[in-house]
Amino acid sequence: MGAPLDTIILGAGTAGLAALREVRKRTDRYLIVNEGPWGTTCARVGCMPSKALIEAANAFHRRHVFEEFGLRGSEGLAADIPAVLQRVRALRDDFVQGALEATEGLGAHALSGRATLLGPRSVDIDGTAHATRSIIIATGSRPTVPKEWLAFGGRMLTTDTLFDQPTLGPRIAVVGLGAVGVEIAQALARLGLEVAAFTTGKTLAGLSDPAINAALAARLRQDLALHAGAKAELREVPGGIEVRSGHHRVVVDQVVAAMGRTPNTEHLGLDSLGVPLDERGLPAVDRQTLQVGDLPVFLAGDANAQVPVLHEAGDEGHIAGMNALAAVPARFERRTPLSIVFSDPQVAAVGQRHRDLEAAHTVTGTVDFADQGRARAAQRNHGRLNLYAHAGTGRLLGAELCAPGGEHLAHLLALAVQQKLSVHGLLGMPFYHPVLEEGLRTALRDAARQLPPAAESDLATCTAIGVAALD
Amino acid sequence: MGAPLDTIILGAGTAGLAALREVRKRTDRYLIVNEGPWGTTCARVGCMPSKALIEAANAFHRRHVFEEFGLRGSEGLAADIPAVLQRVRALRDDFVQGALEATEGLGAHALSGRATLLGPRSVDIDGTAHATRSIIIATGSRPTVPKEWLAFGGRMLTTDTLFDQPTLGPRIAVVGLGAVGVEIAQALARLGLEVAAFTTGKTLAGLSDPAINAALAARLRQDLALHAGAKAELREVPGGIEVRSGHHRVVVDQVVAAMGRTPNTEHLGLDSLGVPLDERGLPAVDRQTLQVGDLPVFLAGDANAQVPVLHEAGDEGHIAGMNALAAVPARFERRTPLSIVFSDPQVAAVGQRHRDLEAAHTVTGTVDFADQGRARAAQRNHGRLNLYAHAGTGRLLGAELCAPGGEHLAHLLALAVQQKLSVHGLLGMPFYHPVLEEGLRTALRDAARQLPPAAESDLATCTAIGVAALD
Repeated sequence: MGAPLDTIILGAGTAGLAALREVRKRTDRYLIVNEGPWGTTCARVGCMPSKALIEAANAFHRRHVFEEFGLRGSEGLAADIPAVLQRVRALRDDFVQGALEATEGLGAHALSGRATLLGPRSVDIDGTAHATRSIIIATGSRPTVPKEWLAFGGRMLTTDTLFDQPTLGPRIAVVGLGAVGVEIAQALARLGLEVAAFTTGKTLAGLSDPAINAALAARLRQDLALHAGAKAELREVPGGIEVRSGHHRVVVDQVVAAMGRTPNTEHLGLDSLGVPLDERGLPAVDRQTLQVGDLPVFLAGDANAQVPVLHEAGDEGHIAGMNALAAVPARFERRTPLSIVFSDPQVAAVGQRHRDLEAAHTVTGTVDFADQGRARAAQRNHGRLNLYAHAGTGRLLGAELCAPGGEHLAHLLALAVQQKLSVHGLLGMPFYHPVLEEGLRTALRDAARQLPPAAESDLATCTAIGVAALD
Repeated sequence: MGAPLDTIILGAGTAGLAALREVRKRTDRYLIVNEGPWGTTCARVGCMPSKALIEAANAFHRRHVFEEFGLRGSEGLAADIPAVLQRVRALRDDFVQGALEATEGLGAHALSGRATLLGPRSVDIDGTAHATRSIIIATGSRPTVPKEWLAFGGRMLTTDTLFDQPTLGPRIAVVGLGAVGVEIAQALARLGLEVAAFTTGKTLAGLSDPAINAALAARLRQDLALHAGAKAELREVPGGIEVRSGHHRVVVDQVVAAMGRTPNTEHLGLDSLGVPLDERGLPAVDRQTLQVGDLPVFLAGDANAQVPVLHEAGDEGHIAGMNALAAVPARFERRTPLSIVFSDPQVAAVGQRHRDLEAAHTVTGTVDFADQGRARAAQRNHGRLNLYAHAGTGRLLGAELCAPGGEHLAHLLALAVQQKLSVHGLLGMPFYHPVLEEGLRTALRDAARQLPPAAESDLATCTAIGVAALD
């Protein structure tokens, strides 16, 4: 081994690229090593192709309100599944190309191959040992599939393979109803496929508030057959794959496994670090520094199995990239938790989740979008939002929601929570009319009624006029 | 006259109903008097029916991206204009019913008739004088139509009459392109009518930022014939109404006058108050108390011609209702300015407008939505957002935008401006992926590059990775 490098980045996904951006500002004594296809999970098989699919599905699904709008001819609309998938791939390829450009021109700094840690300051890359002052592990994750299900071959799909299919169905089972399962199951159903969806638990899309979970379940049942609360068992039968769960049984052409993601860490040689590993084989990682113990090793993005969403992976790459080259790792204040599921209505969780609240000290404000004015004008009046505030101070703690425009309401709430605003403080902002944000205001007013009163000469104390068209 | 009442509210629209809500909490010695149909401008002829129309128009217009999505058969879709209008009326009637219920059960407190001020403590109602300790004027506004255009009779439409038509067109001219004109012109065009739109000025939808105005104009030209910069002249010709403006000439079946609104104040006897009236016949009104001079008279909502939008009218009714019965009128801090135009892409202005900025002390951050990831996935990648920050402190001053999801981005920006956040402060919030709010983040980062640098160990300093799928 020659003189040590300053750092080696393992993985060129979102976290790795974010780390690379910081590393390149500080040194040219680095390597970035990627195993398998370059391009990020987000662009290749995650956020972007799924959103392209969902947008097509929801555009098609809107035909069901066309008659109510006074629009004729919707019975003649059809989803051309191969064409829908072709567009998804075209967009995906373009997004992947953008990701590939981020590592173009790196020359010998970028290597394709398998990296294995030999210790906290040494990495083996395809048989060659490299000394380094620090290591950034950002090897990402992959869909979890039970080993025995691999026997179903090309009919066992995950997000890694779904978008590459020439066509789909017509009968599909989706197993697992976290964020990805809910998004894919609903999108495929709305494109006209016959979808049966299964989850072992009772909760969907990561929700922990029973009222919001019920609102989502009710809407999903409009689109597909939903089976919750029992394990799904698969077996080959004449005509397809049989999925059994509790008393339910369905035969399908393809199965989408959406049972979470497994960190890509088992081949990394993490045991060479000399720190304890948990049952998943992962070391403890400081969320504010991304450091492993006091080693010059940083674990960022999906690989650390903390919060496998893109904006957190980007933040973690940023932190790891800076800290890997810092004399003393800096402690970063992390952002307010925010997660969104792009179902319709959209699901989101902001700040503290329902399951983490202390009931005795919490006030819940709620709104049902069935009667919300703008949602009615748009024929999108389904869903509910619950927000949580501290009973003493009125400070906003968090929210769970399944609501039209939910992704936008969630960002507004995330800013409010991040700024430590109270219910009263958020009621001080302007709410235009008629907008979905007025639904959020209804929930805020509901919470305000349960909180100590505020000064009268403050517009935040305005209560509802009690007229649907105005509130 | 008997013992004086505590207050008389003139007008039972949004401002009047908001005042009524506060008055009823404090006294039963009041009257509310309404001339003409009960129900609010918003519910009867404003926000709600226009939004119902716009939602139908935009649902129909989405058919143009169906082929790109892989959805077939859109050529068979048709807008049944009478049915579209019928739905608009059905929704409107329901919203109006809700507004009527707000004054049900008031008995002798509610009067239909014309009210005229006899002085600051006396009101004539259909020939009977009523003594009162205070007066709340909330008589609203009506569409402005040049007197000579009334000769066109039923073919001269305004929002007062548009939604009551059994059908429309096929050839329509919209004269005036403020908020209402832009919304109506685009909606009718998207429903398949042949629309020519005219404005005397160069700016559309109240925008003052030339770059944002240009973005809106470019999109509107996709839908309709846009003629800006010259006065529209009308005359009867064989086959219809001819509209001439500069070199342009078009013959249409109907004309929609969208040239602003005139306060309903000319019959009120405001001259009896003994205070100076301006050229419109209006007295000066304190925006924080709604009081006229030091008289026990309060002027709220569209009638005071300040900010004729619903949420401001509601606030003003609230203030006037409290202050009319207070020993000393309270001064209210008004909300951050926010206006939204429900075109597609949506237009909004938040806080300080471009025209009010001091160029030497302002930094502008911009984003073009043509390349924005989520907007591309949704086939909605058109528009631009400009945000303005103080060059020294980075404090957010305001924004103008014409952008997909503009109504939501505007609310997020309004909260940030109301909270006196800086560009850096807003960059500290979480932005999920892939969302339209990431477009706002791009503009924030653009502004941040022009501002003094912030501390490194802060996630708000994260810059773009430079990958379209990730940023």
